[in-house]
Parts: sequence; structure tokens; C-alpha cells
Amino acid sequence: MAASTATGPFDQGLERRPANYEPLSPVGFLARAASVFPDRVAVIHGDRRITYREFHTRCRRFAGALRARGIGRGATVSVLAPNIPALLEAHYAVPMAGAVLNALNTRLDAASIAFILEHGESRLLLVDRELAALAADALGRMRNPPAVVDIDDHLALQGERIGSIEYEAFLAAGDPDSEPVPPADEWDAICLNYTSGTTGNPKGVVYHHRGAYLNALGNALAFGLNDRSVYLWTLPMFHCNGWTYTWAVTAAAGIHVCLRRIDPALIFGAIAEHGVTHLCAAPIILTLLIHAPDAAKRRFPQTVDVATGGAAPPSPVIAAMEAMGFRVTHLYGLTESYGPATVCVPHADWAAKPLDDRARLMARQGVAYPTLGGLMVADPESGVAVPGDGATIGEIWLRGNTVMKGYLKNPKATSEALDRGWFRTGDLAVRHPDGYVEIKDRSKDIIISGGENISSLEVEEVLYRHPAVMEAAVVAKPDARWGETPCAFVALKPGASADAAAIVDWCRTHLAHFKTPRHVVFGDLPKTSTGKIQKFVLRERAKAGA
Amino acid sequence: MAASTATGPFDQGLERRPANYEPLSPVGFLARAASVFPDRVAVIHGDRRITYREFHTRCRRFAGALRARGIGRGATVSVLAPNIPALLEAHYAVPMAGAVLNALNTRLDAASIAFILEHGESRLLLVDRELAALAADALGRMRNPPAVVDIDDHLALQGERIGSIEYEAFLAAGDPDSEPVPPADEWDAICLNYTSGTTGNPKGVVYHHRGAYLNALGNALAFGLNDRSVYLWTLPMFHCNGWTYTWAVTAAAGIHVCLRRIDPALIFGAIAEHGVTHLCAAPIILTLLIHAPDAAKRRFPQTVDVATGGAAPPSPVIAAMEAMGFRVTHLYGLTESYGPATVCVPHADWAAKPLDDRARLMARQGVAYPTLGGLMVADPESGVAVPGDGATIGEIWLRGNTVMKGYLKNPKATSEALDRGWFRTGDLAVRHPDGYVEIKDRSKDIIISGGENISSLEVEEVLYRHPAVMEAAVVAKPDARWGETPCAFVALKPGASADAAAIVDWCRTHLAHFKTPRHVVFGDLPKTSTGKIQKFVLRERAKAGA
Repeated sequence: MAASTATGPFDQGLERRPANYEPLSPVGFLARAASVFPDRVAVIHGDRRITYREFHTRCRRFAGALRARGIGRGATVSVLAPNIPALLEAHYAVPMAGAVLNALNTRLDAASIAFILEHGESRLLLVDRELAALAADALGRMRNPPAVVDIDDHLALQGERIGSIEYEAFLAAGDPDSEPVPPADEWDAICLNYTSGTTGNPKGVVYHHRGAYLNALGNALAFGLNDRSVYLWTLPMFHCNGWTYTWAVTAAAGIHVCLRRIDPALIFGAIAEHGVTHLCAAPIILTLLIHAPDAAKRRFPQTVDVATGGAAPPSPVIAAMEAMGFRVTHLYGLTESYGPATVCVPHADWAAKPLDDRARLMARQGVAYPTLGGLMVADPESGVAVPGDGATIGEIWLRGNTVMKGYLKNPKATSEALDRGWFRTGDLAVRHPDGYVEIKDRSKDIIISGGENISSLEVEEVLYRHPAVMEAAVVAKPDARWGETPCAFVALKPGASADAAAIVDWCRTHLAHFKTPRHVVFGDLPKTSTGKIQKFVLRERAKAGA
Repeated sequence: MAASTATGPFDQGLERRPANYEPLSPVGFLARAASVFPDRVAVIHGDRRITYREFHTRCRRFAGALRARGIGRGATVSVLAPNIPALLEAHYAVPMAGAVLNALNTRLDAASIAFILEHGESRLLLVDRELAALAADALGRMRNPPAVVDIDDHLALQGERIGSIEYEAFLAAGDPDSEPVPPADEWDAICLNYTSGTTGNPKGVVYHHRGAYLNALGNALAFGLNDRSVYLWTLPMFHCNGWTYTWAVTAAAGIHVCLRRIDPALIFGAIAEHGVTHLCAAPIILTLLIHAPDAAKRRFPQTVDVATGGAAPPSPVIAAMEAMGFRVTHLYGLTESYGPATVCVPHADWAAKPLDDRARLMARQGVAYPTLGGLMVADPESGVAVPGDGATIGEIWLRGNTVMKGYLKNPKATSEALDRGWFRTGDLAVRHPDGYVEIKDRSKDIIISGGENISSLEVEEVLYRHPAVMEAAVVAKPDARWGETPCAFVALKPGASADAAAIVDWCRTHLAHFKTPRHVVFGDLPKTSTGKIQKFVLRERAKAGA
């Protein structure tokens, strides 16, 4: 009735024009910040300072250099680097050229990196000197490896150059006056981020300009960023593009403080010396800060806002962080949702509650981001919201403009994930009477170790390839330091023999180090009547010390 | 080169779906705030409190009642009311029904209102009891008057009902469970706002959902709104939908404090009693607060952020406001740009400057809003940006997603305004070396004397700094020898005295001789319904010998 499509005066002579329509893109935040604060520091990296004018000029040169190589719309540019200026600059320069940024997880093994470069059809790889050996190994496995630009960061400790040109020379050759190419459509791809999916090879999650713009604004609002904000890059920029803070901090015209490595002394030093106001980090990083040696710790006058996610922050972590001068906010999201999609917005009356009560409230994943379209805990069968009773378990479903375009070259997985008008997260949760969502379990068997996702199936696949292994199952074992570590349950073939050290060695050879099981338990595996391995039983055993 | 349109893997199987695309609309901010803070106060109106849950339910009822009358997509609903809950609710309920909100300027005469209702093809008029006589007069002039809903606000002092149903009864009949109709397209019209054009009939400026959403987020960022913000409605909601703060405050889940009338005692009272943190107001309101009787003034512990626009705040106004506990921010925009399009972002080093220097910096219109696409001071002939030398005058041009769809049923005016990819504001300005834009005059307000351009604003600024002057306006007076000369109209502060010679002497001391007014006229200044000084009236007077 209301959705009549009859045209009236509001549909006539009021079409889109260049004056009143432009594609949304986070790239424009940089030009704006450079026009408002040209001489203000935009990026701090060790003793280096880059003003917003320089930041903007460097990105334009970078984009010009890409275009001079014929890298434009729809071409993929990969970067393998820690949180250094070059990777931040790539977040603007690559889309300025119309191309797609693929920020690689620096903790992956060479085979995974080779797979991603090939699957993503990468045209150019920028690689930090410290990661050159890993990159060379990956490139050696490829039939058509991309060209390489070395990043010879002055704070890199080791490594040789493997490419034909260094990043600064590459930039210097680019035209600083080249005009950025706005996306033809805000739906155009801006980034390609690979998940460690539960089954087989990683999936390439595609972001568009519209979603990146909106999630960046959502961050700025949810985290209270402004032009006095100083943001420390503890969260890897390769994680969902730093949860889109790569753009959010610039949208607010704040300061990016780069950080090559996670080291409590460096983190406390940056906080104290640069007046850091905000940072994001997995709970493991918070634990690391709490248990840092006294010599590494520093006092600072400001309160530092910390957004954490990936796992709920436990109450002792919250208490210890607050005692050190931090204020913790809990976010939740996935690669498919541009990072944060929900935030556990604190209510005024929580502050007066006992710590354990407050921690219980804060451990929840919370409510929709201001820029998320919809959040529902759904019965996966009926697609209907479960009652908000804090008890009925359903699956978290998300929808809106900050849900990915889909998985690259994987229409089947895309259709399965973006089902019935919603993105199905695979996370099982309840909705409390106050509307807040809390995860109870994961329907996928992902292990989160040190903030990194480990697919149990990927590890199992390696185990199954061991000549002595008959059956294998990998589950998460709670770990004080890493949050979770993989724990392997193995049944050997009759007559075969292998000890734990041999199994671990085998995994080390075929997997990234962080994916290697820390514990190996031998014996028959519990099964359902239909022959499925009962992972929940194994999880209990792993938890109990198994 | 870069903008190749060849399709690659990023263009295949990654199309828009209901899961990852929805039209942007500010209406969704209300559902989100209601889900996060259902029991929190959303609206304060006298002794009345409306929680976010109630606010949401009331708007759904309102939308349901509209739909039950067959009012849906593309239909216009007009409201003639001061800043009361019904007008705020209309900002959500009308677009929830798919319809277009037309908030009427309450200071217009009956003929203008009749013109607008007719031109906008209004289907329904909601009218506050205090304005019923004006509405009845307007409706009596129409051939096909819209149906009327009376708003019998409990704080209204006078007036009779003229419609067949009262607002609360109208709401009560609406279905609270009716699902909002999202716009079919974010380009769909959401509001219709008539400008008080200086020549001929007012023009109907059409806003769309996309622009309203984005400008609201821009406000929240530029003004630092969050869920602890308490916003006082001093700015009329009929002014560009309250500069889109009607949606921005809800986006931040802040509190709306309604205000029926501009009365310093009510304003100071609300600030002190409700902990107001933000308000918007034209400089004339600031002057009113400063010169309020001591009995009306109140002390308050918080600093209140005040965004002002329409004219630059003079330095004595800034100083007096700061002394009372306010912090002034200067915005600039037009009805055509959803209200604020630029903001004079303060730099850290301004705080230490002498007041006059700081005021001169703050008097500038500033830099682009975070959500504005482009801002240029252009040579109107060539369309090229003038040099940023602080001296070369050009016209302010704006572009982007927060520029109107166009003027309703006026393709010619639309094409003239949205010319060559930009919206031409008609405001003459310079760009300073720091990139900040400063208005020198409306194109029609420039005085040309002996071939020299005189900015009437510059002369007015000097007049405002004179201790006896409360308000001042300068216009061109025809002159046989010089072509034109500046003629000053001055209203003195209550109890203050100054003669023409003293005023002229003051100007000679602070201005080039040729800019000094030759004539000074004392008395109250004529104003438009929106509080703007009517320079065309003064021009007539100056011409007639004033």
C-alpha cells in the first residue's frame, strides 16, 4: 500500500548529478584531513613523523606509480608487512588507483601466502625486509609470481631485499599530482582479505568502498574518535584492514602511531610518549600488557580506550587493565563484517556494580554498531528471532551495508553465507532481556590463538596425512597466554607408532607455527551413533587438562 | 587507463543482495537507539519524559496511522509547530510511512504557508494549537486544503483546535506493530524544506534519505555527539530539519530537550536542570543569552558546546559566551546543503591567542564537513579555484552527497544551482593560506564604491566590536560620485548611547577610509521570519535617503 511506485513530483527532474552524488569511499577522508590539518602529524613511526600533507602526497605518488605500471581497476595489490607507514599508505594509494588491496597475514606459512597470491591474482607484492625470506619462499612456489617492491623500513632488524625496486624509490617515481580515480561505483571492490575458513583453503572476503566508508564512520562514532585522538596500531592492519580503523582514524583526522612488533615496552613507551588515547587489541595483548615486567611498564596521565574482540575479556583482565589506566570496550565481528559489527555499549549504571557483575555484562558481544543494518539471534531453521530470554540459543545473523560483497570466485560459499537476506555468522548466541547478544558457542570449530583464527579442519588435514595417523580431531584448549591453543586427539593406525614429538614435528613442517598443536593426546575418538566425532567431548577433555 | 571497465573476478558473483545492501536512511537510527537504550530518556519536554522505547513505538503508531489514511511513498505531510515532540516524531514517522516531511517555518505569513502547502501538494497538516489561527488563515486561502491533525501540546498557552482529530488520538489509532517501510531507494525524497528566497516565491528544497543519513553522521562527528550528549532544541526543527540534528542526536542515542519558545530563562533553566551539553543557535540567540537579565541567567558546571551559523560570531559574542560557560563552534551551510556543510575546526594553537585574533580565525566558515564531497572557492566564470591567498574573492561551491536533490517542480532553478558539477551557493569568499574559507559577502551584498569592492561583513564586524552596538547591518547607498557608498544601520544595546560621529570615528580607526560608512541610521533592524536581517528592506531605505 505504502510502497506505491507511482511517480509523482518527487520523481521528476531530481535525478542524480555530479553536484549531488558521488560514490562513498574512505579514500576521501585523507584529502579532507590534509586540507584541514596539512601541517599536523598524521603518522608516527619510531623517530619519523609524517604530516597529513606528506601522507596525502605520498599516497598520490604511490597511486601514480601503480597506474604507471598499468595497475588499475580490479587489479590486486598485496602487501606483506607489519604495521608500518607503507601498509597504512597502501590503504589509500591502492584504491586511489582503482585497484584492490590485499593485506596479507604475516603469520601465514609460505604455502598459504602462495595460494592467496595466486587465488587473488595479485599483480604486485610489497614486502617488508623482515618478511622477505617468507615472501621469497611463497613466490618460489608460484607459476606466475607478481612483481615485488621491497619495503626497506628503517626499523626493520634483518632480512634481504628480494625485489627490483625499493618502496621509497617506487614512490619517488610516482606523479604526486596524479588525481585519484574515484570508484566508478561505491560497490566496487576496495579490499580482499582472506579468512582461515573451517574447510580447506582460505576464502577471499571482498569489501567495497561503501562498506569501508560506513564501517570507518561507525568506528569513529562507537569509539569516540576526534581530531585529538592518538591511535596506537597494536591491532594488525591485515586483520580486516585493522577493523577499518586504517580509515576511521583519518576520518577523524587523528594520529596513527605505527608499531612494528608487539612488545609491552614499545606499547607502554608509545602510550606515555605520544599521548595515545585509543588502541585495539585481542585479549591476549591485554594479558601481555598486564603481565609485562615492571621495567617495561610506564605510567601515563590519560585514560586509554581499548577496544578488544575475538574473545570476551575476562574480569581479572578488565580489572588489571583499569588499574593501569585503560578503559576496555568489547567489540565483536568477523572478517565478513569488516571487523566490528557489534559493541557492548556500557550503561551508566554498570560503573557502580561489583567487578564480576560488570565483567559479566561486558563479556557480552552487545548491540549493533550504529552503521550495521540488522542484528538478530535467529533460529537457523526457521530464520525467526529467538526470544530475548538469555537462554534460548540461536545463530547470530547480521545484515546491512557493512556485510562483505561475498567470497572471491566462490559463488557457492557466498550464497551459503548470505542466506535468506542475512549473513550467517556461525556463532551461537543468546539475546538477553536487555537486548544484548552473548555468544555461547561456535558452530564452526575455529580456534582463536593469540587473536589468530586457526581452522581445526586444516590442522586435521595435515594430521591425517601423517602415515601413522588413522583418525584425528583438533579442538581449542584454553590457554592463559594465547587464549586458546590447538589440542590434537589422535588415533593411530593398528600397529603403527608415533610419539607426540613426531606428530608436532610433522605439523611444524606443514603448517604455520601458530597452527601447530601444543598438545597431542592418543587414543580412540568419541563418536556419535552416526559416526561423527564428538568435538564437544574432546573440548571438555582438553579443558580438563587432557 | 585506470578506469578500465573490463570485468574481472571482482565483478562476478558479488552483486548486491538483501544481506549486504540496504538503502541508507536516518530512520534506522531510532530502532537502533531503542534497542540499545530502551528505557533511557530520549525526549524531555517540560515535565514530560519519553523513553527511546516509547519514542520508537509512538513513531511506528504515527506511521501506521499515516498508512491507514493511504499516505505513502511520495506523499507530503506538513507540520506547523514549534520544537515539540510531535515535530521530532514526524522526522521518523513520516519517512517510516514512505512519505515526505515538510516542516513549516512558524514565522511565515498565511499567504506563504498556503503557497507552500499548495506547491508541495501537502496531504496532511499537523498544527500546534498556538499556531492554529495562522494555519486556519492559510487553509482558507486554498482550493484543496489538506486534512488537519491538531497538536494539543500541554505547554501550549493559547489557541483553538481546527482539525477533526487530536495528535494523541491519531497516534493511538495507529498500529504500533506496523513495520516501517524502508525507502525503495536511498535517493527517495525524505523532506521538503522551503527557502525564504529574497526574490519571488520560496523554492522547495528536496532532501533524500542518503543525504540525511550522511549529514546526520557528519554532525555527530563534527560536534562530538555520543550517548551522554544532551541536546537542547534552540534551533528550529523547521530549519533544514534542525540542521539534521533531529536525526544526529538519535544516531548518537543522546537526549533531545524540546523547547517551545526562545526565552533566555527557559534556555538557562534547561541547561542547568537537564545537564545540556550541546545546542545550535543563530548568533542573534547568543546575543539574547548574553544580554539576558541577571534573574534569567543560571550557572552550570558543564561546558556547553554551541554551534552557530548563519552569520559569523563577533568576538565580543565569543568572549561573553565563553565567560558564561559555553564553547562556540562556527558552522556554515544552506538549506540546499542539509544545513551545515563546513565547520571552522579549531586548531590547538588558537586557544593561546588573544581573543581578537582567535575571533578573527573563528569568524571564518572553515573547512569541509567530514561528509561533504567537495568545497571550492571558484571563479564563477572559469569554474577554477581561486588562489588560497586570503584576498582573491570567488564563489563558494559545494558538491557531494549532502547537496539537495534539487528544487521541487523547478528544473530550471535546479539546473542553475547544480551547475557544472557543483552547487553554487552565491556566497562570495576567499580561501586563506591555511585552507580555511571565509565569506566576504553574498554576491548581492557587495558594495562597490569608486570601483573598489567593500565587504559589508567586514564593516559590520567592526561595528559589532563597538561597545555600544548590539546589532548592525551595512548596505550600499547609491551615490552620484562613488557609485555606491556604505550605509550603516545600527541598533544600540539597551541603555547604551553613541551618535553617528562616534560610530564613524570608530570605523575610521579600524577600517580603510573608503570602507567607512558615510551614513549611520539608528533603530531596530527589520528581520525575516528566520531571524535574518532583511538587507533588501534596508537597501530600499538607504536608496530612499534613509
